[in-house]
Amino acid sequence: MKILVVNGPNLNLLGEREPGLYGSRSLEEINAGLGQLAEEKGVSLEFFQSNHEGALIDTIQAARGRFDGIIINAGGLTHTSVALHDALKATDLPIFEVHISNIYQREVFRHQSLISPVATGGIFGLGPMGYRLALEAACELLAAGKK
Amino acid sequence: MKILVVNGPNLNLLGEREPGLYGSRSLEEINAGLGQLAEEKGVSLEFFQSNHEGALIDTIQAARGRFDGIIINAGGLTHTSVALHDALKATDLPIFEVHISNIYQREVFRHQSLISPVATGGIFGLGPMGYRLALEAACELLAAGKK
Amino acid sequence: MKILVVNGPNLNLLGEREPGLYGSRSLEEINAGLGQLAEEKGVSLEFFQSNHEGALIDTIQAARGRFDGIIINAGGLTHTSVALHDALKATDLPIFEVHISNIYQREVFRHQSLISPVATGGIFGLGPMGYRLALEAACELLAAGKK
Amino acid sequence: MKILVVNGPNLNLLGEREPGLYGSRSLEEINAGLGQLAEEKGVSLEFFQSNHEGALIDTIQAARGRFDGIIINAGGLTHTSVALHDALKATDLPIFEVHISNIYQREVFRHQSLISPVATGGIFGLGPMGYRLALEAACELLAAGKK
Amino acid sequence: MKILVVNGPNLNLLGEREPGLYGSRSLEEINAGLGQLAEEKGVSLEFFQSNHEGALIDTIQAARGRFDGIIINAGGLTHTSVALHDALKATDLPIFEVHISNIYQREVFRHQSLISPVATGGIFGLGPMGYRLALEAACELLAAGKK
Amino acid sequence: MKILVVNGPNLNLLGEREPGLYGSRSLEEINAGLGQLAEEKGVSLEFFQSNHEGALIDTIQAARGRFDGIIINAGGLTHTSVALHDALKATDLPIFEVHISNIYQREVFRHQSLISPVATGGIFGLGPMGYRLALEAACELLAAGKK
Amino acid sequence: MKILVVNGPNLNLLGEREPGLYGSRSLEEINAGLGQLAEEKGVSLEFFQSNHEGALIDTIQAARGRFDGIIINAGGLTHTSVALHDALKATDLPIFEVHISNIYQREVFRHQSLISPVATGGIFGLGPMGYRLALEAACELLAAGKK
Amino acid sequence: MKILVVNGPNLNLLGEREPGLYGSRSLEEINAGLGQLAEEKGVSLEFFQSNHEGALIDTIQAARGRFDGIIINAGGLTHTSVALHDALKATDLPIFEVHISNIYQREVFRHQSLISPVATGGIFGLGPMGYRLALEAACELLAAGKK
Amino acid sequence: MKILVVNGPNLNLLGEREPGLYGSRSLEEINAGLGQLAEEKGVSLEFFQSNHEGALIDTIQAARGRFDGIIINAGGLTHTSVALHDALKATDLPIFEVHISNIYQREVFRHQSLISPVATGGIFGLGPMGYRLALEAACELLAAGKK
Amino acid sequence: MKILVVNGPNLNLLGEREPGLYGSRSLEEINAGLGQLAEEKGVSLEFFQSNHEGALIDTIQAARGRFDGIIINAGGLTHTSVALHDALKATDLPIFEVHISNIYQREVFRHQSLISPVATGGIFGLGPMGYRLALEAACELLAAGKK
Amino acid sequence: MKILVVNGPNLNLLGEREPGLYGSRSLEEINAGLGQLAEEKGVSLEFFQSNHEGALIDTIQAARGRFDGIIINAGGLTHTSVALHDALKATDLPIFEVHISNIYQREVFRHQSLISPVATGGIFGLGPMGYRLALEAACELLAAGKK
Amino acid sequence: MKILVVNGPNLNLLGEREPGLYGSRSLEEINAGLGQLAEEKGVSLEFFQSNHEGALIDTIQAARGRFDGIIINAGGLTHTSVALHDALKATDLPIFEVHISNIYQREVFRHQSLISPVATGGIFGLGPMGYRLALEAACELLAAGKK
Repeated sequence: MKILVVNGPNLNLLGEREPGLYGSRSLEEINAGLGQLAEEKGVSLEFFQSNHEGALIDTIQAARGRFDGIIINAGGLTHTSVALHDALKATDLPIFEVHISNIYQREVFRHQSLISPVATGGIFGLGPMGYRLALEAACELLAAGKK
Repeated sequence: MKILVVNGPNLNLLGEREPGLYGSRSLEEINAGLGQLAEEKGVSLEFFQSNHEGALIDTIQAARGRFDGIIINAGGLTHTSVALHDALKATDLPIFEVHISNIYQREVFRHQSLISPVATGGIFGLGPMGYRLALEAACELLAAGKK
Repeated sequence: MKILVVNGPNLNLLGEREPGLYGSRSLEEINAGLGQLAEEKGVSLEFFQSNHEGALIDTIQAARGRFDGIIINAGGLTHTSVALHDALKATDLPIFEVHISNIYQREVFRHQSLISPVATGGIFGLGPMGYRLALEAACELLAAGKK
Repeated sequence: MKILVVNGPNLNLLGEREPGLYGSRSLEEINAGLGQLAEEKGVSLEFFQSNHEGALIDTIQAARGRFDGIIINAGGLTHTSVALHDALKATDLPIFEVHISNIYQREVFRHQSLISPVATGGIFGLGPMGYRLALEAACELLAAGKK
Repeated sequence: MKILVVNGPNLNLLGEREPGLYGSRSLEEINAGLGQLAEEKGVSLEFFQSNHEGALIDTIQAARGRFDGIIINAGGLTHTSVALHDALKATDLPIFEVHISNIYQREVFRHQSLISPVATGGIFGLGPMGYRLALEAACELLAAGKK
Repeated sequence: MKILVVNGPNLNLLGEREPGLYGSRSLEEINAGLGQLAEEKGVSLEFFQSNHEGALIDTIQAARGRFDGIIINAGGLTHTSVALHDALKATDLPIFEVHISNIYQREVFRHQSLISPVATGGIFGLGPMGYRLALEAACELLAAGKK
Repeated sequence: MKILVVNGPNLNLLGEREPGLYGSRSLEEINAGLGQLAEEKGVSLEFFQSNHEGALIDTIQAARGRFDGIIINAGGLTHTSVALHDALKATDLPIFEVHISNIYQREVFRHQSLISPVATGGIFGLGPMGYRLALEAACELLAAGKK
Repeated sequence: MKILVVNGPNLNLLGEREPGLYGSRSLEEINAGLGQLAEEKGVSLEFFQSNHEGALIDTIQAARGRFDGIIINAGGLTHTSVALHDALKATDLPIFEVHISNIYQREVFRHQSLISPVATGGIFGLGPMGYRLALEAACELLAAGKK
Repeated sequence: MKILVVNGPNLNLLGEREPGLYGSRSLEEINAGLGQLAEEKGVSLEFFQSNHEGALIDTIQAARGRFDGIIINAGGLTHTSVALHDALKATDLPIFEVHISNIYQREVFRHQSLISPVATGGIFGLGPMGYRLALEAACELLAAGKK
Repeated sequence: MKILVVNGPNLNLLGEREPGLYGSRSLEEINAGLGQLAEEKGVSLEFFQSNHEGALIDTIQAARGRFDGIIINAGGLTHTSVALHDALKATDLPIFEVHISNIYQREVFRHQSLISPVATGGIFGLGPMGYRLALEAACELLAAGKK
Repeated sequence: MKILVVNGPNLNLLGEREPGLYGSRSLEEINAGLGQLAEEKGVSLEFFQSNHEGALIDTIQAARGRFDGIIINAGGLTHTSVALHDALKATDLPIFEVHISNIYQREVFRHQSLISPVATGGIFGLGPMGYRLALEAACELLAAGKK
Repeated sequence: MKILVVNGPNLNLLGEREPGLYGSRSLEEINAGLGQLAEEKGVSLEFFQSNHEGALIDTIQAARGRFDGIIINAGGLTHTSVALHDALKATDLPIFEVHISNIYQREVFRHQSLISPVATGGIFGLGPMGYRLALEAACELLAAGKK
């Protein structure tokens, strides 16, 4: 079982940027923790972060047939990118949406997600732990053969 | 550590009602699974389900000082109850919101949650597993002393 | 054939409350008339009125498997209760919506019904007779095996 | 007692057009059934169907003084014709609105009726039976001298 | 002269819940103060608080004929309950609306009141004193025979 | 100088329909008065009334090259007919819009006119006199060579 | 019969300001023309123009009992002044609204008038002639004893 | 293969009306060109234009079973006619929508089409050539057996 | 303790203007009553009424440092004046908002107050008594040292 | 004559992604077909596809002076990219917009195109054939010297 | 070259009112600084501040022909005054809009400016320096003969 | 003191693209002018322009710790990019927003800026001079130690 973990714009700043909102762990640390958990579960992970919508789409398109699921925190593109929505939908893979902060307590323009309509489900506001919960969910749902 | 697990209207029907959307496990089975996990983690759980908004509010009010956190799936009241929002806020406890289905893929009137603004975070669309992930999050965040 | 007749908040006041708008017959008189008609048609009726959303939901949930259809005038909850909508949908029974007054000639907040999306059909503005027409419709559609 | 039964655009296609939505009975069959019921009740009916808004208005205008009530299914004009609304209002007759399908479960542009504000009441979603119930309502309300 | 003082969901928490917003006096203390003032004015008061919309409606319905006016702080139901609006309107009594906090400085969903359209008038943002002012207003207006 | 006077749906009912709102003079009487005034001013009038949008459009199209201006009260079509808007615009003639009642004091759906954007100007709420004032305006503006 | 002619902000610039839109005649010239017409009709006029909302309100308040009607072009205040609306309403006099340009062909913020809801009727887009037509309407309607 | 070419209100004015926007060719010339192309492709065409919504609906209803597809430019009715939408849908034929001008660069009320939801596809802004392209599309898609 | 009592446009008409809505007491009588109450409470009052927004702002600006609180009924400016809002906020004094009528039962444009966001609290719909209650509230809150 | 054919995000997936919606032909096949048609018409084509908004803008900017027109299917960027809109507008070239699916039958966020306001015209819902029709239109309009 | 510097309501309070938001320099100090800069640039300035919309309009009207440009901070009137918009437009002078605070980070009712549509350009959020930058811009643009 | 000057999509076309709107100076010329001014002020500038949102974000992220402020004209991304908003916010640097044209006089989709909420302030509509004024503001505010 292989899962792609995608992070969008500005998530490379985790740990530095507004730690009160996003926590103090860097993306590398979060990914390392995820990798460990994946190993325990016998799952293989691949990580991708980019500030470029196009690069994210290229990577997501390439996931089709190579991965069994995608965990994605699309950052600010969550709320604006129809193209990312389309790319995710075209993979025909289960999608797990993560938001570190509680986007529903922030600006109105963060209340709508264009990822949710193509996601199996998601996790918001639980900090970096959200990725780990998403991984658990992915493992369990994929094992159960559900999308 | 004690956590209150609250389920709102119609969640007593889990397993019977639209299993394609909500899964085939009953609330009792879900709660039993949660109880087992809680035991492993050394956490004490209490369960409450009601179709009555007032009874939910009474129970949530009483949680203050008796519990360390609340996991809540408020069912249809999620989208309409300012009174429930107020009761949750008044507990001053960390709140973990759960939705079995992906509410953002359903009717427009399910796209807004009045629980999210008072919740630490939440999980949607991951089926009954959402409760378990919420419990893990609650345990970890409470252990870390965060709200 | 058994049909449940549900009346929501303030319909116990029929005959007293704003008779110009709601008519001068009490709910008991209306129910008595309905009972007579049901008897003629060989149908069994059960009546339930409550001002409590939770009690309405409990009763509607219990209707599943025990009744063949539901006639409902949800009163003010018509416009606000997602929980009632969910309960009705979960019964998987044909639902007949009744409004005594013409809700489309009243305040804007009465123009939207959360019952209509789960109802087979409905009747509005025809006074207490609306219940009787709903019963006729229920009998005929149920006899014809349609939902 | 004389009642005018008006059907608007495309209702001449009943029985042919989307029978899953509108039923399999033709307008002629429906009218025949209505005629029979009217005869039993000692009421005289006149039928008019047109796809032309202007012809509908001409006919409705002419009803004043010649009929005691109007049963109308204005089809697609229900949602768009202020002119029809004005014509109905000018008759000063009781108006009974019928919709074969449940318009509140269809496209958003079918959720508003310009007929309802000038109607005594209405029936939706109950199939061709809606006309018959409207006739019963008309007879009873007219007999009771109410508009 | 008898006046019913109704408090809705979460107002039983006064004094505990967010004292910065709602003040430090409990509902019992507020009611005691009101009682004293009523005695001075030769008015009889009855108090009712509930977190249950249905119980509030039952109580309000029963007020008709037994009371001369109602002072109500409907809490979170203020903004959502058409059923409560209907119950208040059906009493045909003068209604005095109270809000302890200035609801117009809070979340947008608190800016609309469904009580105001059926109230004689109201008081907001003046803390627990709002109840006392409402009582004075009620006494004076009732004495003057105005609704 | 020739001017076409066009009246839309239901204006043939003037004098009969809601005289409190529309006055007690029939369209014939109004037209007769207009004719007299036109004669005094040495202007030739032609009158057309129809309840059929298509007939109104046919007539308006034919006005091009034959008339110097159009006075129009489009009745209920004022608020809904893009086709009428297009026909008027295509004439390239000065258009004078008349409304007998003050449409801005009536239902919200009467507050927008699709005629105004193609009219030189208009008159509302001044009763049947509005036509006469429109005729004066037309004569004066046409005489002054303005559109 | 005495009529007050009120002009609001910037109408003192008529003839200078955007003549393509507002015409080339000054307010003095327009008023002179109106005065002449009034004399012919045996009506007495008084003129007032101000760029100050407060001065307009003072003048309108003072009109009560001294005038039989008001002709008003409130300029930019038309779209924003509830206070002017209130002052006009309080006079209990017939109000005739004038706009030189066709406000419905201009910016969206000019499409709503707060004067129209308290006006008998109005004239727009017909240039300075609008005042003259308003005067004719005022004379005729006042003579006929209508408001 | 037979195709019906329907043109709605004001399209009979093509060539005369606003040639800058709609081009200088008359509807007859356009139809002649279309006829020639159809002949080359071995397809039979029938043309219908009317300014009457009702006549358009009558014609479209009659197309069922007699034609294999419909090319329609509904003119101003595009944006307002639910009845036309219903008639087209009831034919169960492939519908090809044409607009000569780019409706998305014009008034806001032209940005929504009620034809698009029932059309296979459409062409806008390409002038009279739009009809020819629609004919090519119709021929090819019909030949390929697609709706 | 000194309190400024400010009344905005048209409140000088109290007693004359729509007494059914605003009561029959003049502003002078109301102020006299307020003065008496103030004397009893050992508070000094100053009154200001103007129909000029600018004069109201000048007066409110001058209140800073000279008064301990402001009671204001801004009349029609309540709903439109950001400048008044700014002036009140700049005083940094407690503000008590009064409305004689129940503004939430009137036109939609009266449902929003630009004063409420800068007011401590307010009173609406209780007639002239509202000023007196505001004075009591001001005295008590100022005495308690709260803003 | 040289024409640039631009395809945006995810259109490289044509033939793979949701073939029911987008058809089974790959972009290469479509381009090959277009190339052949171009050759017949003596037109030169250049193709560009990218998932990167920036790359699309770079390419479009470079088209100025080198091409005579642009055919563009901007994919998901159609609905969100003001930057693409600006780039297209800056070329001052005729733009032909293509959508394979009928975007007006899909999610609401696909109903608005930011390309249409800068396009000459467009084609939607006609499958891959849309590109070919756009090429025909481009050739003909360019030949006729129109933009 | 002469430039008029206009400040609207409450800007006379600069330095006193909310210094965190508006800075600690008084309007006199700001004007003195501007005067000095103007002298250096050989430009003549005139200053006007008023809390009265009418006085602002009078002054702006009088600027025509006497000044070469206007720098304006309209304070709270920015968002509400169509009359001020009209006065500025009528001067036909270049207008430079200044806001001391960043109005786009404040209440929603401050996000729309009615001055911007008639301004050449503007400066916001840069504190009192905004006036100086506006003066530089005015000098340079006027020198370059641009509006 | 080092300042980063960022220009977004299509600003590389300055001087070529719509010179009537954007002026005739190229970005290179503007930057050269800015460089000269910076030198005079003893400030160091770095310039970056890209049509790629991702490249802009990468550059902005890298500015943290290396620059003291950012001047940005985000072009079309101003109105759509939450990701750019996030990147700017994460730098925790003072941001100065520039728009060459007056965006509030253009299409509605240009009226909202996602940059303004994270900017210190901004300048619009003053042409290329806007950059220079922003530089002056940056120098002065940074020198004064304000963000």
